[in-house]
Order: sequence, then structure tokens, then C-alpha cells
Amino acid sequence: MDNKTRRYVIGVDFGTDSARTIIADAFTGEELASAVRHYPRWSEGKYCDPVKNKYRQHPLDYMEVLEATIREALSHCDATIAGQVAGISLDTTGSTPVVTDAEGIPLALTGGFEENPDAMFILWKDHTAVKEAEEINRLARSGAVNYTKYVGGVYSSEWVWAKVLHVIRHDAGIRSAAVSWIEHCDWMPALLCGRQRPSEVIRSRCAAGHKALWHPEWNGLPPGSFFAKLDPALARIRENLYSETFTSDIRVGFLTPEWASRLGLTTQVAVGTGAFDCHMGAVGGEATPNVLTRTIGTSTCDIMTADYTDVGDQLIAGICGQVDGSVIPGYVGLEAGQSGFGDIYAWFRNVLAWPVEHLPDNSLHIPPETKIKLKEEILEQIIPGLSEAASQLPVDESGIVALDWMNGRRTPDANQEVKGAIMGLTLGSDAPRIFRALVEATAFGSKAIVERFEREGVRIKEIIGLGGIAKKSPFVMQTMANVLNMPIKVAATEQTCAFGAAMFAAVAGGIHEKVEDAQKVMGRGFDRVYHPDEDLAATYQRLYRKYLRLGKFAEEQPDRMP
Amino acid sequence: MDNKTRRYVIGVDFGTDSARTIIADAFTGEELASAVRHYPRWSEGKYCDPVKNKYRQHPLDYMEVLEATIREALSHCDATIAGQVAGISLDTTGSTPVVTDAEGIPLALTGGFEENPDAMFILWKDHTAVKEAEEINRLARSGAVNYTKYVGGVYSSEWVWAKVLHVIRHDAGIRSAAVSWIEHCDWMPALLCGRQRPSEVIRSRCAAGHKALWHPEWNGLPPGSFFAKLDPALARIRENLYSETFTSDIRVGFLTPEWASRLGLTTQVAVGTGAFDCHMGAVGGEATPNVLTRTIGTSTCDIMTADYTDVGDQLIAGICGQVDGSVIPGYVGLEAGQSGFGDIYAWFRNVLAWPVEHLPDNSLHIPPETKIKLKEEILEQIIPGLSEAASQLPVDESGIVALDWMNGRRTPDANQEVKGAIMGLTLGSDAPRIFRALVEATAFGSKAIVERFEREGVRIKEIIGLGGIAKKSPFVMQTMANVLNMPIKVAATEQTCAFGAAMFAAVAGGIHEKVEDAQKVMGRGFDRVYHPDEDLAATYQRLYRKYLRLGKFAEEQPDRMP
Repeated sequence: MDNKTRRYVIGVDFGTDSARTIIADAFTGEELASAVRHYPRWSEGKYCDPVKNKYRQHPLDYMEVLEATIREALSHCDATIAGQVAGISLDTTGSTPVVTDAEGIPLALTGGFEENPDAMFILWKDHTAVKEAEEINRLARSGAVNYTKYVGGVYSSEWVWAKVLHVIRHDAGIRSAAVSWIEHCDWMPALLCGRQRPSEVIRSRCAAGHKALWHPEWNGLPPGSFFAKLDPALARIRENLYSETFTSDIRVGFLTPEWASRLGLTTQVAVGTGAFDCHMGAVGGEATPNVLTRTIGTSTCDIMTADYTDVGDQLIAGICGQVDGSVIPGYVGLEAGQSGFGDIYAWFRNVLAWPVEHLPDNSLHIPPETKIKLKEEILEQIIPGLSEAASQLPVDESGIVALDWMNGRRTPDANQEVKGAIMGLTLGSDAPRIFRALVEATAFGSKAIVERFEREGVRIKEIIGLGGIAKKSPFVMQTMANVLNMPIKVAATEQTCAFGAAMFAAVAGGIHEKVEDAQKVMGRGFDRVYHPDEDLAATYQRLYRKYLRLGKFAEEQPDRMP
Repeated sequence: MDNKTRRYVIGVDFGTDSARTIIADAFTGEELASAVRHYPRWSEGKYCDPVKNKYRQHPLDYMEVLEATIREALSHCDATIAGQVAGISLDTTGSTPVVTDAEGIPLALTGGFEENPDAMFILWKDHTAVKEAEEINRLARSGAVNYTKYVGGVYSSEWVWAKVLHVIRHDAGIRSAAVSWIEHCDWMPALLCGRQRPSEVIRSRCAAGHKALWHPEWNGLPPGSFFAKLDPALARIRENLYSETFTSDIRVGFLTPEWASRLGLTTQVAVGTGAFDCHMGAVGGEATPNVLTRTIGTSTCDIMTADYTDVGDQLIAGICGQVDGSVIPGYVGLEAGQSGFGDIYAWFRNVLAWPVEHLPDNSLHIPPETKIKLKEEILEQIIPGLSEAASQLPVDESGIVALDWMNGRRTPDANQEVKGAIMGLTLGSDAPRIFRALVEATAFGSKAIVERFEREGVRIKEIIGLGGIAKKSPFVMQTMANVLNMPIKVAATEQTCAFGAAMFAAVAGGIHEKVEDAQKVMGRGFDRVYHPDEDLAATYQRLYRKYLRLGKFAEEQPDRMP
């Protein structure tokens, strides 16, 4: 069977709550089938404690949904398709690591650790390792080399070293059993190809460079001496890791007979090197160098690839990392993002929902089931209703100005202690006016990121919007275009991450030489462009200066909340 | 009939929406009867335009409710009481002036002006004269004598000269017909005693000193040359005004036969000099020198009387006026206040009410009348529900800080351009937490006033709370006591203004020599004292500094809303 026959590829996107698989034609981009499954244990709320920001996922959840979605997607295709699949690539959230035994098996899959949350994958948004992150930052700043310099200068509690240090410190059983660790995006291909042993794992450049302090300047990970100052057990684990990393065009191997059988595929299916969701999503959204791809949901993940002529060895201050090849091989991948975006609108909705949520139980003797439906109906209408009302209001530079830091600030210049604000309130400031100010604030937060890239000499040719808000909120997207004074294109496909994985699968599977080639033939294009209004852009430029002044004031305040 | 027989007095309080009359025993303070009526034309929304902040009241509204409430109150008493009334005093809102003809008749009661809003009383909260107030301020600052120096240094658009200048400039008919003007609190006694001619009117020291720039330093009103620079027509009107003013213990005269008959009283009823509501309210609330009396409703009106040993000839910066005898004869009356108080809570309620107000018409096929009731039920519950929830939260100095300037700032240092703000917001900032911050902000605004008095050397011995919020909101009052670190006593009577008017009526009617004597025998006492919690007071002292920093920042911002 030649390449033209073996023309199909599979992309799998492991999100926070569910995984999605698509099967695509590597020569046309046509989507043959897709399937989504929620993680079963996670859906039950198992192993988590939201009050403590503790979020863990069982490896069995990943294995089961992988098998289920691939089998379901295949079931929607002609029976001959399964035999013609050339490659599979997978993206995951991150940093989402797990500690493993000497064979590279996640401890939760080994005897005695099956129900121990510290033996499971620690989800990206888990914040149990705040203290450990602080300790890493103090150490990094005190040495001759600041190992955080390529990740924006601050090590986050959401990243692998802080998380591993946390679990080995808090659980003696884990401490003695943990031999190595692995990121979710590395474990999936390792599992499928039967190369889980720490020495054999093909590690993602993306995960290693953005979250594990890997950099060629110090020949890989920071030295054991660095980790020994944090904890001897961490230094021991570091010895069972890696110095080499790989871009996502690299094939990890082929499906083992066991996994080929479980998935209903053949052992001739190549498996590509994994990466994080937004990075593959940028590729799926047809990002090219110097195009900023923004995945806009509860928060934003902003990905750029830049030419070496733009970046070279220069450090880009205040962003979330710059890693050679983390998105497209041969280019520097730059990551940034806003800690709160759709979450801020949801926060305001929840504030407004308070009277309805606290409806007296016996009011008017409306039957309870009617009351529940009524509440749902009101709550669902809040954001669409506010968007509609806010879009009718004139843009007014003398109105309300808000600060979008209700969930801290990721970039530019990470600071989780800063908070949100609303200024310029009068007795006439109604809910739609406040909502509009919040939408403008999230757009100003976007502008601050774009300005930072530009100030650091990284040209931005174009902006591409991906994700739920980009697809569903014309008011938000038009406001953002006006504030940025740049057109924003919205990708046609909803499944950009899985689609990006499929493009990489086409390279790993030998159909295309480079992922740029896969983009050209598989790209689904754009279904909408938001063009800025020049007059409003000028008004917003003035309002943006107010936003910056308010931000400066808020950040300078002492006694901030811990 | 001696004084012991003629022992009853009438107090009338003309509020914004309605007037209230009480009949009291001048020797015991017992309230025999009371009656309230809304102004009929005002209730229909006539002559007003809220979008333009234009609020006018027809003189017939005042005459009709005066007659109706006195007749109704008398009807609740034994038939012999009417013959034993010794005096009547009246308080009104202010500055609420009207232009008059040469006989002192409000133009709206003269031919051709019956339906002209500019010929009616211009209610205190009417803001149509913003430009004219600016003009007066510019002129006042440019001359050798700054005539605003005893009213805090800023002339407000809510005050008589700005309003009169506005109507004579905007209506040629008014301009040629206006010979003089009169404040509502002066017109009521003048009308009842038949001495409306400008040369015969007994003018209230309170209204003249706090709102009309009257002061002994320049022998009364500013000179004609001052007004001529604003408008020759205003200078002409000034010639038909006054140089002498009177405290509220002075009798204006007795009821004319016509009014005795209309009211069901005798021509032996003395009528006292009028004053503004909060000034008489302070007396009714049993204020004594160096006690700050706060009438707390949608906004606050804060009244102090101070000894000359405290104030002397010193100018108190940033308050709303210092007038000898404006409250209690022989003491300096000091006025301050917050532009927004209960209005700020109502604003937040309205923001939260948005989803309920915008309930889809056809939702769930609930009958329309049920839906209207449901809306009402939800809206009524918002502030009580938030107060209850907010009172359960620990006081936390690392939380939200708000600024209570949603309706501008009256004192200290009047500035109608400043606006409100809310800082320190996180995704966990729910409606009760924001509400609590707003309550704290209004208490911080109170503290700024108290601090200003103290900084200027005016001792505050005690605080008395009056008005709707003082009576009905323990959470707000306790927070205020904690923030001020002072006990706050709440007057027992709800009708402190009408009660204060009745006390003055007892002096004007010859029953008591001084109003302090009337207070002693007629006072109804206090029904509650809020004591500060020392620990919370210390925490609030720190939070107050955040409030001050936020205020400084907000006030320094350029491009404020006009």
C-alpha cells in the first residue's frame, strides 16, 4: 500500500474534561468522522478537591477514552478506512505530569497506588504546589544561571517540577516509589509504542522547553546540583529523565500489537511526538510564522512562531516561554496568555445571578420543577442578553474602565497576586455598561500582550482566533479587533487542536514532509474576519491608556491578597 | 387661654415626594396624630424630565398637601384640640427656590405661567443649572472677596443663584416677569401669614446662609455689582431681596383668617420661621452642640452645631457651609453630607436585577401576573438578602475596597466629577462580598467627613443617626460604628424633621423660650446604640487607608466624565 492508499490520519486532543478524536484525509483535510468522550472518573469528581485547587486525573481515564473515541470514530467510517490509517498524533493539556516507577509506568497503574491522587496525573490547573513553586523561584534567582530565563523569569505552580516536588514531599509512599516522571503528552505516544521506560521515552520539545526548564544553553534540564538544593529525592528523579527532546514532526514509533488491537488499527500506524493542545491547535488553525494564534475560552493561550531573524538569542521579557520548535520545527515557539477571559464574563454572570439563585423556596407557590427551569432559563440568558444590550451602546471614552486581573495576570509579566477592578462607576452604570467594560478590559489585556511582543521586536502580521469565544461571541471579537486595531480571522474548524494533531500525524506517518505542507493541503480556512473600525480604534487607544494607568496603580498597592 | 391650655403644636415636613404633618403636645412630646400626602402633580411625573435632571414642583402641590395633611391629622384628634394649637413650623427641602412677581407670588400662580416649569419651585436635586454654577464659581474666585468661602468654596448647581440665573436666561417670559425669588421654606410661612411681598418676607438664616451666599461679613447678600457681572437681570432681582435673616425660633406672624379657615385652625396660631429639613431634623433628633446628626437615606445630610469657642471666625474647609444660627440659635450650624449612600446600594440592586428585569416574556408560560409578582418578590429580597449574607462574612483587610462616589462627592471637598470604583476583585468576589465593600465604602465616606471636622478643630462628642437607613439597616449602622470607631445612637422617632419643626413651633408659639428647652421636654429619646468593635475598628483603620489611596488615584485621573 503506497501513501496515496494509506491516506488517512488520526488526531486526538485530550482536553480538561474530555478527549476528542478526528479521522481526516491527509490529502484534502476532509474530516471523515469524530468522537468525544468525557473522562469517566473525572466526571464523577473523583480524586479532586476544588476548594484546595487540587485536580488529578487517573491514567485509566485517558486509556479508556482513547480507545472509545477511536473505535467510535472508526465505526462512523467505511470499514476499509481502519486499514488505511498512516499515523496518529496526540495533544494534551500541560503541564500535566505523573510520577512513574522505573519502568515508566504511572504509579497509579501500579500495585498499592491505584486510588492515590498523588500517583495520578496532576492536571495543569492544579495549584497545590504554590509553595514549591516559590521555593524554585527563590533558588533560580539566587544562582549564577537563572534557569527560568527562557520561560519569562517566573516558575509557575502549574508546572512539572513544582508539582513533582509537592507530591514527593507530601506522601512518603510516593517519595520512595517515584523513580521518574512523565508529561501526559509524552506518555500517550510512549504507551502506544511500548517505549515507556524513562531512557526510551521520546520527549516533547514543547513540554520540556515551556514547563521543565529544558534548554540547550545548559545542555538539557538544569543539573542535579540545582535540584539537590530543593530536595535530594528530586535530584535522584532528575537522573532518570532526559537531555534530548523532539519536535512533533518526529515519529515515536508504531502501534504495539496490543494497542493496534485495542484501537482496531494496524501495527503499521506511525505515532508522532506529542505536544500541548494550544501548540497543536495553532498549527490546526493554520498559523504561519509571525501570526499570533489566540485560543480564547475561559482563559487564553496565545501562541506565536517567530523567525530566528526576529528573535535570535534575545530573551522576550514577561511571556510564558520561548522554545525552539515547540510549535513548528525550525521556528521559535512563543507562548503567552491571559489568566482570565471568558471566566471574567462568567464571574459577572454569577454575581448577577445571585438574586435568582437565592429565590425564596416558597415564593408564589410555583412548583419546584418550574422554578428550577426558570432559574436555568434566566441564567442562560444573562451573557447573550448582556452582549446584545452592550453592543448597542456607543463606545465612550468617558465611561467605565475595568482591569481584567480577576484571576491574576499570566502575561505580560506573570503576577498571580494582582486583582481586577472597575472604575468610573456612576448611578447610571447599568449591567450592560459594566459588562461592556469587562469585555473591553479583556481586549485591553490582549493588547498588552500584543504590545509586549512588538516592543520586543517580534512582528505580528496577523491574528487568528480559535476556541469557544472566538466562534460564538461576535461582540467580544469585534471589540477585540477594534482595541487591537488589527483584523482577526476565525478558523473555520471547531476542532483545531485535534486537527493540528492530525496534520502532525500526516508528517509522522510519512505522507507529508513538513507540517507546513500538511497545513497547505489539509487547512479548512477561515469562516469570518473581524475588521477594526478606525474611529473606534482611536478612541480605544485613549481608553487603553486609562487601563494602563489603573493597572499600574493596582499593581503598586501594598497589602494585596495572598 | 394660658399656655398650659394652648399646649399643642404642629410640625410640617415637606420632603421630596410628600409632606408629613404631626400634632404634638409641647409639654410631653406625645404625638397626637400624623398624616402624610404625596404631591399630586409630582406623583404624575408632571413638569419633570429625569433624563435632564430637571425636577420642578408646582406651588399648588404644596398648598394642597399642607391643607390635606393638617385637616387629616386634626380629624384623628379630639375636636377640642384644633382650638388649642399654639404654633406651627415648617421645614422643606432646599435649595428649592421659585421666581416671583412684585407681590412675592410664585410666577406659576400668576396668569400665563400656570403650566411653565420655569415658573415653579426648582427642586433641590434639579441639575439643570450646572453651567450657571460654573460661571458663578469662576466669578467668585476672580474677585477680591470669594463669596463662596463660608459654603465650602464651591457654589453648587443645586443652589438658588445658579437656578434663578438658569431660568431667567432660558425663558424670556420668565426673565421679564421675575421680580424676586423665594425659597420654599420661606414661602410657606409667608403664605400662611400673608406677608409674601419681598420687603415683608421673614427669610430663613439657614437657607440664606447655606445656599444664597448671605453672610454678615458683606452685610447680607453679595452686592449688586457681583450679580451684574453674571447678568443684569439677576442684579435687578437682587435689589428685591433682603439683607436681614432670622433663626427658626422667630415668629413670622399668625395664620391669616383665610388660612386659619382652610386648615381648620384659629388666627391665634403663631407661625415660625422655616428652615431646611435636615436642620430641623437635627433638632428633632435631639442634637446638642458638638453632636453630629446624620440623616441617612439615599444620600446623607450631616448637621453639627458648634460652639464659637470651637469655630470662631475660622473657615472650615471642604464642607457645605457654616452659618450662625442655621440650626440652633446662638451656635454655628455646620452642614456636610455624602452625595450617595442608600442610592449606592440601590444602584447595586438595580445592576443585580437586570436578569430578572429582562425575563423573556414568554418564558415557561407562567401567567404574566405571576411573573410580575415574582419579579417584585425577587427585587424586594435583594438588599435584605445581601445584608444578611454580607453580615456573616469576616471583615478582611485583604479583600475588596470600593469608592462611594457613584453620585459624585459632596463633602469633604465637593467634586461632582469624581466617580465610584471597586478594586481587589477576584473570581471569588460574589455579590454579598461586593455589597459589603459598598457598605464599607459608604462608611469610609462618613469617616472622611468626621476626620475633616476633627482636623479643622471641631470636636465631635457623639453621633446620632436619623432617617430610613439608620432605622432599618443594622448591618450598615454597625459597620459605620466600627469604621468610625464611635458609638452611634439612633433616634426613637421616625419623623425627626416634623418633630423638630414641632419643637420650633413650641418656641414660635411662646410655650418654650428656647428650642433647647423644647428638646428637653419633647424629646423622644433613642431606641438603639451601635457600639464599635475595637478589633474591627483597627482593621477598618487599615482598610480606610486603602480607600484614601484609591480615592486619591481616582480623583487625579484626567478625562473624567463631564
